[in-house]
Amino acid sequence: MLDIKYEMNKELKEKCSSSNLGFGTNFTDHMFIMDYKEGKGWYDPRIVPYQPISLDPSAMVFHYGQEMFEGMKAYKTEEDRVLLFRPDKNIHRTNITNDRLCIPKINEEDMLQAIKELVNLEKDWIPDAPGTSLYIRPFIIATDPFLGVRASSTYMFMIILCPVGAYYKEGINPVKIWVETEYVRAVKGGIGFAKTGGNYAASIKAQMKAKERGYSQVLWLDGVERKYIEEVGTMNVFFKINGEVITPSLEGSILAGVTRDSVIELLKKWNIPVSERKLSVEEVYDAAEKGLLEEAFGTGTAAVISPIGELNYEGRIININNGEIGEISQKIYDTITGIQTGKIEDNSDWTVEIK
Amino acid sequence: MLDIKYEMNKELKEKCSSSNLGFGTNFTDHMFIMDYKEGKGWYDPRIVPYQPISLDPSAMVFHYGQEMFEGMKAYKTEEDRVLLFRPDKNIHRTNITNDRLCIPKINEEDMLQAIKELVNLEKDWIPDAPGTSLYIRPFIIATDPFLGVRASSTYMFMIILCPVGAYYKEGINPVKIWVETEYVRAVKGGIGFAKTGGNYAASIKAQMKAKERGYSQVLWLDGVERKYIEEVGTMNVFFKINGEVITPSLEGSILAGVTRDSVIELLKKWNIPVSERKLSVEEVYDAAEKGLLEEAFGTGTAAVISPIGELNYEGRIININNGEIGEISQKIYDTITGIQTGKIEDNSDWTVEIK
Repeated sequence: MLDIKYEMNKELKEKCSSSNLGFGTNFTDHMFIMDYKEGKGWYDPRIVPYQPISLDPSAMVFHYGQEMFEGMKAYKTEEDRVLLFRPDKNIHRTNITNDRLCIPKINEEDMLQAIKELVNLEKDWIPDAPGTSLYIRPFIIATDPFLGVRASSTYMFMIILCPVGAYYKEGINPVKIWVETEYVRAVKGGIGFAKTGGNYAASIKAQMKAKERGYSQVLWLDGVERKYIEEVGTMNVFFKINGEVITPSLEGSILAGVTRDSVIELLKKWNIPVSERKLSVEEVYDAAEKGLLEEAFGTGTAAVISPIGELNYEGRIININNGEIGEISQKIYDTITGIQTGKIEDNSDWTVEIK
Repeated sequence: MLDIKYEMNKELKEKCSSSNLGFGTNFTDHMFIMDYKEGKGWYDPRIVPYQPISLDPSAMVFHYGQEMFEGMKAYKTEEDRVLLFRPDKNIHRTNITNDRLCIPKINEEDMLQAIKELVNLEKDWIPDAPGTSLYIRPFIIATDPFLGVRASSTYMFMIILCPVGAYYKEGINPVKIWVETEYVRAVKGGIGFAKTGGNYAASIKAQMKAKERGYSQVLWLDGVERKYIEEVGTMNVFFKINGEVITPSLEGSILAGVTRDSVIELLKKWNIPVSERKLSVEEVYDAAEKGLLEEAFGTGTAAVISPIGELNYEGRIININNGEIGEISQKIYDTITGIQTGKIEDNSDWTVEIK
């Protein structure tokens, strides 16, 4: 149990209106910080006014990318209850990432407590318009002022919050996806399964390339054979082929998404065949040709479900489900967002209420 | 031509003694900063007192690893001249890295000017004991306060300096190297050729594993077939087999080292057969078995040459050149360090004097 010190912000900002929240630009009045020092462990947990952080220019995070983050949301129900969605999964993944990056582990109960206390303090910042939420960004950075390559001996763990708008303002529109064959996001043996900066830095160039060609996201292929599907943009990806829902298996190069896991559990509960396995882009194209590719969608915390309406693989374009959201995609979206906002009963203990 | 503003530090630090400099921990009195804003370009170049930098906790560098760095050195000759070694190569590589990371390019003449002015101001910090130098660390970080994944629209370019001690204090001792088969540093299509944080973050875990087993560095294999040699630790690597010097070719997953390039040029000048090609770890082991593996060494800015005395590949241990530095390794080391410090005539225009 952390003994979190509070230093309250004397000048509270004006809350944003629910209608023009955007994503990732407005932050609340306070943040959580905890420091780490080798031999001392994590110490000095505190909630302080949201403010810039000051670091030596040689701080290792600026040079060697020893950093990690998580992303989750708090939702306000119609009864003004505040719910987190499967925070245990994000918190557990924090330590999986930390292990790969040689960042010291965090006590998982402490991390949940820190999230709960900060969100509770900032609960008036949680927007309540449909589709809106409070985005929670825990992250850790290496702070040793040292220019050699090794694990840092000091770190900062922080949590910042930002109210975010509805991902879909005008209904869910399927997106056009570019199958990337030149750039690779990650490879087995690397850091692809970890939520760390390097994976995202590596992805920007291909995303820009796709955008220039009129596509909103990239579909990543594996870095070894360059034929198996990995992720779409920063989301996991699912394809429904001839009644079976297929998603790439977790073999070290893709992120184990919380929404991905929730989708698999729901499909199993609904007795819809679902499998985690290797899936080549050719198999998807073959299925499309035979008229068996029924739906495709990305999954992630930001959008929950992002239906795919078109794929472009080396100039071969296929349309999926007439560019409309599929039946399963819609059902998953409605169910998960319903549970997140307390409108649908949570039979799986996925939500955690903040009181 | 940059119009660099100067704000002088009023309290100069005591210079470190040449005997206990270490690496990467002591910084000089001033640093160079230049900002970037989309639509405005790089602006406000300035030399200011070395000091912490203040960033929003949501600054993109903390989350998405959009960052790059370079590493080079300034050397003091016996006549008190100050020399840089092939700065054009590091400066050109800066823009190769920037391109991959979607960081705006820097005018290469401006970057050289900034390095020269800062080093000239801090020239009393350049140590002059044998093997010592002033390490120069230019780096760029993405500073947009924004939590979405895209290229930042603002950046900081900085240069910091630290006097560094002799890499080899008691003669050049060959090191023991662990051939890594579980973790991968980078793969073609990724960011392995770029000098960016993600590659180093990905490498720390294998380095720790090697250290625990009594090895000082990791030899990386390719991420696709897991059999071709890539780099050693953070250095390029060379093997001399039956009179021919071989180094892995540049195919996108390894760094194009400045020392690597210099070694290749020197070998060509000396009419020693040198080739850049794929080299499998099995080929090296076969050569060792036949008594044809004559030398092996890493190359990099920090050590110049780091001879390899032992390799451990899945428990198979080979000793190289009786654990002693080889003839070619020693000649390369003497020549490059001689040119860097003005003791050997520079016939290739490799050095740039700062006046």
